[in-house]
This record gives sequence, structure tokens and C-alpha cells, in this order.
Amino acid sequence: MIEIPSKEEVLAAHQRIKSLVHHTPVLSSRLINDIVGAQVVFKCENFQKMGAFKMRGATNAILQLSSAQKDNGVVTHSSGNFAQALALAAYNLGVKSFIVMPTTAPQVKKDAVVGYGGEIIECQPTLKAREHAAKIVGQRHQATFIHPSNDMNVILGQGTACVELLAEHPDLEVIFTPVGGGGLIAGTALSAHHLAPECRVFGGEPFAVDDAYRSLKSGVIESNTSTNTLADGLKTELGDQNFPVIQKYVEKIIRVQESEIVDAMRLIWERLKIVAEPSAAVALAALVKHKAAFQKRRIGIIISGGNVDLDRLPFTS
Amino acid sequence: MIEIPSKEEVLAAHQRIKSLVHHTPVLSSRLINDIVGAQVVFKCENFQKMGAFKMRGATNAILQLSSAQKDNGVVTHSSGNFAQALALAAYNLGVKSFIVMPTTAPQVKKDAVVGYGGEIIECQPTLKAREHAAKIVGQRHQATFIHPSNDMNVILGQGTACVELLAEHPDLEVIFTPVGGGGLIAGTALSAHHLAPECRVFGGEPFAVDDAYRSLKSGVIESNTSTNTLADGLKTELGDQNFPVIQKYVEKIIRVQESEIVDAMRLIWERLKIVAEPSAAVALAALVKHKAAFQKRRIGIIISGGNVDLDRLPFTS
Repeated sequence: MIEIPSKEEVLAAHQRIKSLVHHTPVLSSRLINDIVGAQVVFKCENFQKMGAFKMRGATNAILQLSSAQKDNGVVTHSSGNFAQALALAAYNLGVKSFIVMPTTAPQVKKDAVVGYGGEIIECQPTLKAREHAAKIVGQRHQATFIHPSNDMNVILGQGTACVELLAEHPDLEVIFTPVGGGGLIAGTALSAHHLAPECRVFGGEPFAVDDAYRSLKSGVIESNTSTNTLADGLKTELGDQNFPVIQKYVEKIIRVQESEIVDAMRLIWERLKIVAEPSAAVALAALVKHKAAFQKRRIGIIISGGNVDLDRLPFTS
Repeated sequence: MIEIPSKEEVLAAHQRIKSLVHHTPVLSSRLINDIVGAQVVFKCENFQKMGAFKMRGATNAILQLSSAQKDNGVVTHSSGNFAQALALAAYNLGVKSFIVMPTTAPQVKKDAVVGYGGEIIECQPTLKAREHAAKIVGQRHQATFIHPSNDMNVILGQGTACVELLAEHPDLEVIFTPVGGGGLIAGTALSAHHLAPECRVFGGEPFAVDDAYRSLKSGVIESNTSTNTLADGLKTELGDQNFPVIQKYVEKIIRVQESEIVDAMRLIWERLKIVAEPSAAVALAALVKHKAAFQKRRIGIIISGGNVDLDRLPFTS
């Protein structure tokens, strides 16, 4: 059994990181409100440092290390936003970072990690190879491993976006987030539970990688057999730290089709005028799909990030 | 000779419209600062109502009409943002609007005008046909014609973005705007002249439609022979109301190539995480091109709007 962090720990995480991350803006659109039939506000973590909420969890996790641990550096494996987040958070705190990335990771992401002072260790593009490489690097440098989503300090950090959102909109009745590795939704549900106990938290997940939906049904952590989704930040699976939090505090996970993700992404880009990644659009897609159940509610949506490849956008007329 | 509006008139325009438009945010990017070698802040009129600064000028112009004029409605001709701006500003003020649009205007823009309660009058896609149709409509309904850029109340309205920018960043040394019909740059230059007399205003203009550049050289209003630019908001020409203001208060107009516009647009989308139209990127393109002349300066850029067709973006790998 894991121990569920207290309200004090949720608030302490926000105090700990707030000077090191952006207090991101909250936006809304009259037209999106009309489409959904509710009052919807968007917490825009695409404006966060390095372009995603992951900066929050990475920063909180490093700040919780001892001086000796900080001296030896941190290590993670990620092909996505957490690689950049840990590299930048470590850089900002004067800590060395080792980032295990698959050989198939896009050059632009590798360049970003190097730009933030991270040391890249390449490995084969399998979870097993990634975990093995991270273990070797950790042993060699005595660096502390920080998991992208299955680490309670990371989870608490991700939950600070919701802390800020509820401070600005304390009367929210519902909050939607996308579900990937589970760090964001677990952190959000934890913050909402302590700060707005009546507020219900929902997840949006692509049908193609609906491991979290199935995990909640079966009661055990399920895996994905396919990873064929536009929402490349949501291919990862839950872990033993975040799953119990999700089981306890998340109301429901709503699955969406790829075309619904593209439609929601278009709404966000056209109406909010912001660049949000497909994963971020999954939360709005889930709300739009089940809008009948949320008429006239006050709803918050966490826009998880804005790191997209402009040369490979999914829009077509 | 036109009469140049006073500081009081500039500030009064802002007081007049401020409750009817969004106070748009100002964003910045460390990486863009590094690329330019200066401190650059972006006034984000892409977040303005209907997605562009034109809402400001349209609102100010309607508010300056008499009750009798308001009763008869307003008319303009535009294939772009001003059509939507006048329709929405009129709607918000309970005024009828007649919008002359060429038959070739995109359906999405016509739909937006109708959605804001505007009545569309279609005409052939020539300036002559547009002006003629607007005249006929104006006579039939006694509606007041409001020009998209060559009207001093419109110019004063457009200048209110700069009023807000200078209130937040009073120490700016340089401001860049794009140059199309001349309303935005004239209004900006007027506001800067009165509120920050040391601040110099520059324009960015595509080589393909460099009428304003040539007008400043020759001293008379020049026309474009081609309109072959991505920056579809900048194809229009200066007028007798804004040209004297531009001659007097704009330091220089810098011309940019189409590829430079796309590069600047990519920087804005990738780094600021906002959806900005090609015309908006022209100002940053001009700064990047001449960055050597602006090292270490405090620079403001007006992001003019964010109305783009996501199915026809200029990015390609």
C-alpha cells in the first residue's frame, strides 16, 4: 500500500517549485463554451518552461533529493517531454542529468536535451533496453533515477498546475486531464481531492492506448498492445505509485477516437489561438464527446503541453 | 493637411473602448531573446476578440458615431479581419452592419461575419467593385462607411494596443508592427509618439507588397502591382489619413522575403506556443533580419492577429 500524500504535502510542493516554474495563464473561449454548453477554462501548461507540465514534477523531484544525491546527478529514460523537463530542471538547480533516449527519438528532442545541459545515453527503442540503460548509468554515476510519472514527488509536482487552477477558479465542479503514464491525472486528482473535495476529476484517453481505462475496469495495471495514436505523450502505462491514487480519486476515464482528438485540437488552435499538442487535446475531446453529462457545469481542462512538430500536423481539409 | 490627434485623444480612445475589447497579454521567450540579442516582448492581439487588433479600431469608430448614425448602421468592404471586426463591434453595440465582401472571400470568413450578425453584400473581387458596392449600400441605408485602415478613429483604436503595451513596458526603446493598410502602424506610432517620445517605431513589410516602403521613399502613396505574399493581411495600401502619420512618426520600413516570414512564424509558434497569422510574423521577421542594429535593446512587437487556415499552413520540413 502506498501512503496518499496529505493536503499539506500538496501545498508544500507548490510552494517548493513555484519560483522555478511559470505560473501559466488560464484561457477561455465563448465559442467553446457554446459548443460544450458549459463554462470551460483551460490551464495552459503549453506555456510552461520547456513547453509542458512535466517541468513541475521534474523540479519537485530534484528539490526533494539530499545534497549528496544532488551532487551525483539524476537519471531518467524518456523519448518525450520528461527528457527535456528533467534536463532543464536539473540545469536550473545546478544538478547533472543523464537522459536515456531511444535511438529513434527525434533529433529536435535530443537537441533540446543537450541544449539544457543534459547528457544523452542512447539505447534501443524498447522499454526493457531503456530501463536497463538507465540502471547501468545510475550505478556508474550513483545518479538517482527519477521516473517520468510513477514517482510520488513527480506526481505531487504535476498536481501543482491544479493547485494554481483551483486558486484562480475555486468553484470548478469538474476537471479533465489527458491520461498517459498517470502522473498528471494522479497529481491533479490528489490536489482536487484536498483543495476542492466536491470537484470530480475525469481523464481523457485515446482508444488506441486505453490501458488506463482497462486498468480501472480490471483493478490491475494493464498494458497497451498497440501505440497507434497521434497523442504520442499518452502511450505510456500506469505504475504502482499513481494507480492507487487514480483508483481512489479519479471519477472515470473517457476514451476518444483519433478523429475526435484532431477535432478538439483544431478547436483549441482556432479558438484559443494556442499551440497545443495532440495529447493535450484528448482532454477536451473527452469532454466534447460526453458534453451532455456536463451541461452548465464549471469545468477546468489542463492543456498538458505544446511541443509539436509543425511539419507533421494532423489537419487536412 | 490632416490634423494629428493629441495625446489626450490617444488616451481617450483607450478609455472609450477598453471595456469592449480584451486587454491582451504580453509574452516573451528566452530563446527568441537569445536569437535576436535583445529583450523582446510580444503584445498578443491574436488573443483579441475575433482574433485580431482590428476589433479595437472598429469599436472606436462606431463609438464616435452620433445616435442617428448608429441607428442607420455601418458599412465597410473587406475580405479579411476588418469584416469580422466591424460586424462584431457593431453587434456588441447594437448597431446594424453591412459588409461588402468579394465573391472570392473564404466561406469561413463569410460564416464568421454572419455569425456576428453582419449582413453580407457580395461583389466582384476588385477594389473598384468593392468601393462601388459599399457606396450603393451606404446610400440605400444611410449607413456610415468605415474604412478598414484610412479613418482617424480606426487609427486611434488600433493604437490602443500600443497604449496597453507601453503601460506595461514603459521603457521600450523600439516597437515593430507589420504594415498593410497602415492603420496599425500609424496608430502605434501615434501612441508611441505621445506616450514614449524616445521610442522608435519600425514597420515590417513583405517585398512582394512593398508599397509602404516605396511610399516613404517617393513621398506619395504607391500601389502594389503584385499581391503574391503569404501575409494576406498586408496586401492593402496606405491612405491619405494614415500616410502623413507614418511619414512623420515611423522611423523606417524593413522589407522581408517570404521565407523569412515563414521562419519568423515558426519561431512564434514553436517558442511562444501561440497561433499567429503570417502577417503577424512579418514584424518579427523584420527585426530578425536587422537584428545587428538592435542589440541589447528593449523591443516590443505587436502580434497583429491569429486568424489562419490550419489546412493551409506554410510549414514544410
